[in-house]
Amino acid sequence: MPARFLKKRSEKIGLAPGSLVFVGEKKMEKPKVRLINYNNSNLQEIELQIIRESDKFKKIETVTWLNVDGLHDDDLIRDIGNEFELDSLILEDIMNTGQRPKLEEFDNAIFIVAKMLNYDETKDEIISEQLSLVIGENFLLTFQERVGDYFEPVRNRIRKSKGRIRNAGVDYLAYALLDTVVDNYIMSIEKLGEKIEDIEEEIIDNPDPEILEKIQDFKREVNFMRKGIRPAREFILQLSKIDSDLVDDNTIPFLKDLLDLITQAVESVEVYREMLNDQLNIYHTSVSNKMNEVMKILTIFAAIFIPLTFIAGIYGTNFEYFPELGFKYSYFIFWGILITVGLIMLRYFKNKNWL
Amino acid sequence: MPARFLKKRSEKIGLAPGSLVFVGEKKMEKPKVRLINYNNSNLQEIELQIIRESDKFKKIETVTWLNVDGLHDDDLIRDIGNEFELDSLILEDIMNTGQRPKLEEFDNAIFIVAKMLNYDETKDEIISEQLSLVIGENFLLTFQERVGDYFEPVRNRIRKSKGRIRNAGVDYLAYALLDTVVDNYIMSIEKLGEKIEDIEEEIIDNPDPEILEKIQDFKREVNFMRKGIRPAREFILQLSKIDSDLVDDNTIPFLKDLLDLITQAVESVEVYREMLNDQLNIYHTSVSNKMNEVMKILTIFAAIFIPLTFIAGIYGTNFEYFPELGFKYSYFIFWGILITVGLIMLRYFKNKNWL
Amino acid sequence: MPARFLKKRSEKIGLAPGSLVFVGEKKMEKPKVRLINYNNSNLQEIELQIIRESDKFKKIETVTWLNVDGLHDDDLIRDIGNEFELDSLILEDIMNTGQRPKLEEFDNAIFIVAKMLNYDETKDEIISEQLSLVIGENFLLTFQERVGDYFEPVRNRIRKSKGRIRNAGVDYLAYALLDTVVDNYIMSIEKLGEKIEDIEEEIIDNPDPEILEKIQDFKREVNFMRKGIRPAREFILQLSKIDSDLVDDNTIPFLKDLLDLITQAVESVEVYREMLNDQLNIYHTSVSNKMNEVMKILTIFAAIFIPLTFIAGIYGTNFEYFPELGFKYSYFIFWGILITVGLIMLRYFKNKNWL
Amino acid sequence: MPARFLKKRSEKIGLAPGSLVFVGEKKMEKPKVRLINYNNSNLQEIELQIIRESDKFKKIETVTWLNVDGLHDDDLIRDIGNEFELDSLILEDIMNTGQRPKLEEFDNAIFIVAKMLNYDETKDEIISEQLSLVIGENFLLTFQERVGDYFEPVRNRIRKSKGRIRNAGVDYLAYALLDTVVDNYIMSIEKLGEKIEDIEEEIIDNPDPEILEKIQDFKREVNFMRKGIRPAREFILQLSKIDSDLVDDNTIPFLKDLLDLITQAVESVEVYREMLNDQLNIYHTSVSNKMNEVMKILTIFAAIFIPLTFIAGIYGTNFEYFPELGFKYSYFIFWGILITVGLIMLRYFKNKNWL
Amino acid sequence: MPARFLKKRSEKIGLAPGSLVFVGEKKMEKPKVRLINYNNSNLQEIELQIIRESDKFKKIETVTWLNVDGLHDDDLIRDIGNEFELDSLILEDIMNTGQRPKLEEFDNAIFIVAKMLNYDETKDEIISEQLSLVIGENFLLTFQERVGDYFEPVRNRIRKSKGRIRNAGVDYLAYALLDTVVDNYIMSIEKLGEKIEDIEEEIIDNPDPEILEKIQDFKREVNFMRKGIRPAREFILQLSKIDSDLVDDNTIPFLKDLLDLITQAVESVEVYREMLNDQLNIYHTSVSNKMNEVMKILTIFAAIFIPLTFIAGIYGTNFEYFPELGFKYSYFIFWGILITVGLIMLRYFKNKNWL
Repeated sequence: MPARFLKKRSEKIGLAPGSLVFVGEKKMEKPKVRLINYNNSNLQEIELQIIRESDKFKKIETVTWLNVDGLHDDDLIRDIGNEFELDSLILEDIMNTGQRPKLEEFDNAIFIVAKMLNYDETKDEIISEQLSLVIGENFLLTFQERVGDYFEPVRNRIRKSKGRIRNAGVDYLAYALLDTVVDNYIMSIEKLGEKIEDIEEEIIDNPDPEILEKIQDFKREVNFMRKGIRPAREFILQLSKIDSDLVDDNTIPFLKDLLDLITQAVESVEVYREMLNDQLNIYHTSVSNKMNEVMKILTIFAAIFIPLTFIAGIYGTNFEYFPELGFKYSYFIFWGILITVGLIMLRYFKNKNWL
Repeated sequence: MPARFLKKRSEKIGLAPGSLVFVGEKKMEKPKVRLINYNNSNLQEIELQIIRESDKFKKIETVTWLNVDGLHDDDLIRDIGNEFELDSLILEDIMNTGQRPKLEEFDNAIFIVAKMLNYDETKDEIISEQLSLVIGENFLLTFQERVGDYFEPVRNRIRKSKGRIRNAGVDYLAYALLDTVVDNYIMSIEKLGEKIEDIEEEIIDNPDPEILEKIQDFKREVNFMRKGIRPAREFILQLSKIDSDLVDDNTIPFLKDLLDLITQAVESVEVYREMLNDQLNIYHTSVSNKMNEVMKILTIFAAIFIPLTFIAGIYGTNFEYFPELGFKYSYFIFWGILITVGLIMLRYFKNKNWL
Repeated sequence: MPARFLKKRSEKIGLAPGSLVFVGEKKMEKPKVRLINYNNSNLQEIELQIIRESDKFKKIETVTWLNVDGLHDDDLIRDIGNEFELDSLILEDIMNTGQRPKLEEFDNAIFIVAKMLNYDETKDEIISEQLSLVIGENFLLTFQERVGDYFEPVRNRIRKSKGRIRNAGVDYLAYALLDTVVDNYIMSIEKLGEKIEDIEEEIIDNPDPEILEKIQDFKREVNFMRKGIRPAREFILQLSKIDSDLVDDNTIPFLKDLLDLITQAVESVEVYREMLNDQLNIYHTSVSNKMNEVMKILTIFAAIFIPLTFIAGIYGTNFEYFPELGFKYSYFIFWGILITVGLIMLRYFKNKNWL
Repeated sequence: MPARFLKKRSEKIGLAPGSLVFVGEKKMEKPKVRLINYNNSNLQEIELQIIRESDKFKKIETVTWLNVDGLHDDDLIRDIGNEFELDSLILEDIMNTGQRPKLEEFDNAIFIVAKMLNYDETKDEIISEQLSLVIGENFLLTFQERVGDYFEPVRNRIRKSKGRIRNAGVDYLAYALLDTVVDNYIMSIEKLGEKIEDIEEEIIDNPDPEILEKIQDFKREVNFMRKGIRPAREFILQLSKIDSDLVDDNTIPFLKDLLDLITQAVESVEVYREMLNDQLNIYHTSVSNKMNEVMKILTIFAAIFIPLTFIAGIYGTNFEYFPELGFKYSYFIFWGILITVGLIMLRYFKNKNWL
Repeated sequence: MPARFLKKRSEKIGLAPGSLVFVGEKKMEKPKVRLINYNNSNLQEIELQIIRESDKFKKIETVTWLNVDGLHDDDLIRDIGNEFELDSLILEDIMNTGQRPKLEEFDNAIFIVAKMLNYDETKDEIISEQLSLVIGENFLLTFQERVGDYFEPVRNRIRKSKGRIRNAGVDYLAYALLDTVVDNYIMSIEKLGEKIEDIEEEIIDNPDPEILEKIQDFKREVNFMRKGIRPAREFILQLSKIDSDLVDDNTIPFLKDLLDLITQAVESVEVYREMLNDQLNIYHTSVSNKMNEVMKILTIFAAIFIPLTFIAGIYGTNFEYFPELGFKYSYFIFWGILITVGLIMLRYFKNKNWL
């Protein structure tokens, strides 16, 4: 099983920086390139076959959003790089899906790498997909690992020419997408959090190994989430303080709002992390409690019946001279002794509050 | 059970920012809007049916405090927003009761989201309610989730025209309300703290599972509290350093005092958090101690009576040639052996300090 | 039992700031007010009945130290406030003994709240008393909860007109008092620390529940101490960097020295906190060790004698056809088997290093 | 066994700084000195016997890379120091393989000490080798402890005159080497991480002591790695912000990229550290679970058969007057009692969910 | 036993600052004062009887190093103070061996307090001795608690007029001494670290109480060390950034080198602290593992032989009507049952992987 917390880079060692090598799992056959071009009056959506086609949109004063699904085709990525004059370091990072989320400023572009996280409830697992954004002067490039994303509502808002989005620029579109990404963080945390809070009660009442396994799984997923969300907070903070022509002052309040949201996400992840730690501790303590109970039962049985068995053993010996055996009432006295000893032991454990 | 540490946002995903969607539990039928208008000579209290009525108070140089109980009516919120020219982001946050406490400056207003926390001693649970404040030039808007609050003493101070409050501005009224909120934090921590300190002794003497459950509950409540109180410290710090026309210099010392108070609240929460961690550790150790005791009792009984039973067993065998059985004093020697072995064992455990 | 880590504020909720309400335990009947007035040539000590009497000292260029023991008399506090023109927030804080230690600058005064801590060795408990200092231009006001303090040596230094104190100003006197307070922190930590270091050895050799109780108690006391000492470091740092006419440059080196001292106090508290954590962990581990030992004894006895008892049991059966029973040497062979099995078991446990 | 986390310095105590004493293990016989000299048109590779030979390359405007394998020959190091006018502190640090990774600026050179880490999968051990770099105006000196390194791909890039490397300066070459070093960090973490993630499942299902040993080993290796990687992040940060003529502005973006990479390395190490802590806790809890299970089995057997044995014991006594023994159906009633008692016990444990 | 982590200050409470009171253990009879005076051509070493003798060295432009062994003679300290015009706060701190390591700047001197730490391998204990340094314009004063120190190699370097030391100033001499002190930190950590790493293996294989005691001891010593070394890092950092005429620019690189060294010391101490925490956790887990093993043995014996004993018990009953007893093959069938039951149990435990 490959390490889930770190993606294979071995094939890249020693290569010159800027070398385009796809690092990741190939999740689809042929990449798909979609382009949306709009301003407040016009809207055009096409699926591109040749990158050159996007050329005509570059010159005019509209917002052009080019979305690529599938990252393994280095020719395609190189073409896009040439078309939009992107630094080779950007292209390299886009193709390396093991990137740490980050923001980098270039002369003509802001480059953002983020993780889209989704809680797959059937597998109880967080699915991570890398999203790269390049914010240019009048274009936004987005790169995803596979077809299918959370951005359909944003596309619908564009299509319906509703709200601020059709009047605002590229930076606002980028904000809208990042907002959707963070919304999904919150939702994933929420789903996972519900499950974490759900086991709370069982931990004390019924600390079986299955619960322990759940705690372990949740811990791993929370850590995995945290690895994607915490650096996201960093770059959203950077973005909300950025001093760049590419980000309009009117977008800043929205980015600050987004910062609040991601901060809440980060804090919630931390809360659940600590909750899981607490749960593990309480679980362990609870197991000790249960063991204590088991031990008490064992001790009660042993302490009552072992002495009684011993007494019975004495009268089972075959000594020829054994005066008591011959007495008529011996048998009843014997029972009397057994019952007395038994009652004394019961009382003793009663006093200890074990019964 | 929905996650308590994160409120459902799923219905909001992909919506444009500023969309008015109520997030939370609807806690009452019809929102209630109360308005208090005062300066140092006059005072007026009315319950508004139509927001427009508040119009006349806006122009004059008095303090207008509009309080809304109930947040689910988006038309009402929108009307208030129009009337007082609030940014749509403010309105959105007011209706989303899952907000992280924060302060945001706008051109014409300071917007604060806080949590009112109350320790419900019957359920041993912290009840949280969202409070939003908008500090405008001559008006203060407050939004709560339901009727009934801690602000009655402040209203009484206004009504009795007693103290500084009738001579000071909107900022001082906001301070007075926040002070009441923080006072309630302190009181809730205090109540919870008493319960936490109370179980201290039982932990060692009587570590039963009920105590463990209490520790777990208190941990959850303390964490829940912390989630509301820590960001409150942040925004009170921000407020006490704010450079805005909306906050008068004379109010700053009061805000600094409030900062001391909330700092104390935050530190107390941390103290109780650590105390609970310590309690859990000590509880666990104490359970081990108890188990040790149980084991000792078991071992003493087993180690004394199992050998004795064995000896009795030997003399219970039916060998035809068994010389000892025929001797006259065998029976007494047998008892002698039993008593000797028993005493040796007792002494052994005495030496081990187990008895 | 009221929460020890937070003092009752409930009676204050909703009151206007500056309201004089005593929060704390009333520790004496009638407050006592003592005044010392001195310069390098003269010295006067009187017990004041009426605050007005202090009037004549205010005008002249001497150091006036007014000490109040007992805080529950709001009239007295109000009179002092009027006499020395103190802000109402100062008066409020003086009467509230649940204050967090802090320093606040006012126009004409520096206000300090500190905790005097004393380790009561008979009860193994830290006793806390609130000390408020107001540093004015030529007067120092100190407020304590009850008669009896650590300041007698300072008074003696003033009386003997020895050393720098009679030539220096109010700020130096304040330093001298704070120095005494910090000295007492160190001494309290030292006393507690000795006890903590003392139990170190017993933890492994003899981890009985009493030791656990001690660890719990020490943890509580160390936390309680820490709550008073850490904020004290903050305000001494503030004081040593203060830019105020009320603190002379010549006093700064002394304040820096004091800062070193309180830093040492804070660090020592942290060291003991960690030491107690370590002790708890080692204690727990040690209990497990002991249990292991108990279990081994039980297992040895059980594993040796249960099989032997079984063998004896076989020859105690009453089968009519039981060939071995009739053989002459059966009895001796029987013993041989018992001894062999016993020795094998002993050797087994010897090999396991259990014996 | 010498301490692995700290290298022997004892022989150096009291010596003047700048004394050349080799600290470390001598890993080869005779040091090997290789020189590569290139610009974008020419390339020369030689193995130097006498350091003086490098003289001719110093004057011309090419990049000269002198690599030394083997550090124990102080004459050689001194010669190089003289030839390239290095500060004696640099030479001392080069020979002391126990150095903490760091960057130091000198007037004419930037001096970097780094650790090359390699995960030896056969021994499950991180192998560390010290790499020192001196970045001069037109030369780069590298010092390694032994022959064989990760730099062959970089040499090949130089040889093939491919990519940016032949056109860029010494700083870029240094970057290329450090990039290779960090790539190897990532790869080592990845290998170790895979093994750490692999044991995850066994921890709950089969917590045997071997797994515990693995956790202990991995913890040690992760800590060892961390000790080399964390300071590396510091000096790469320093380097990416350096204000020196020796580092060209064009190299800065590459250094920032490298900083992202090392940050990812540091974070991954932290993630695995925490994962190991979690694993240890879960392992411990799991052992308690197993013990609980063992105890239950013991208790079930003991609680069922000890009472039954006692009952059999009663009817094994030899009382002369023992009415039941004579009844015809006694034997069957006896069996009835045994079975009833046994069933009651079974039901009892069934109700407790132990079966 | 006095607290080792805090030295007695009680005798000083309430005294004026600057009072000369010796705090510590008196480690020798009569203090010893040695003076070395040198420049690059001359050298003089004398043992002073009267401090006045040092007078003649003060005026000339040479380096004068006055070393005092033994701190309890307040007259001597006062004389030195007068002779070299030291602030009374310096003198007080020199005599108080419970000082926290620190650096203080005065008008004419830099005052440093450090701890010399030495690992006494016979007692497995860190021995601490206070070293005070006063760096003046052309003199260096050093104060130690007793005769015998690590500075002999420095003296030899001075005597042999070898290296930089004879040409450099007082600051370089101070550096050379501090370097020796830090070298000894490293060596002490190394010795302790070796012992800590040595027990690693035994923890899992053989977790006996002796190992636990060692872990406890090492923890205490590491904490003790840390208390001396961490503040040393602070003052060396301060010194390396100092802006004072008393420290020459040429000495700064050496101080930076020293800073690297002490940073390494601090980090190593932290590494060993964490390693000990890990060891304690692993030890505890390992004890649980051992207990599990013990329990398994017990359970196997009990679960096999208790049922068998019960069966034997049945056939030991004395029912008159007991059909099986009379059958000829009963005895063999009986053995058959015993063996079958035994084998079933063995198989059961085999399946559970306990055998």
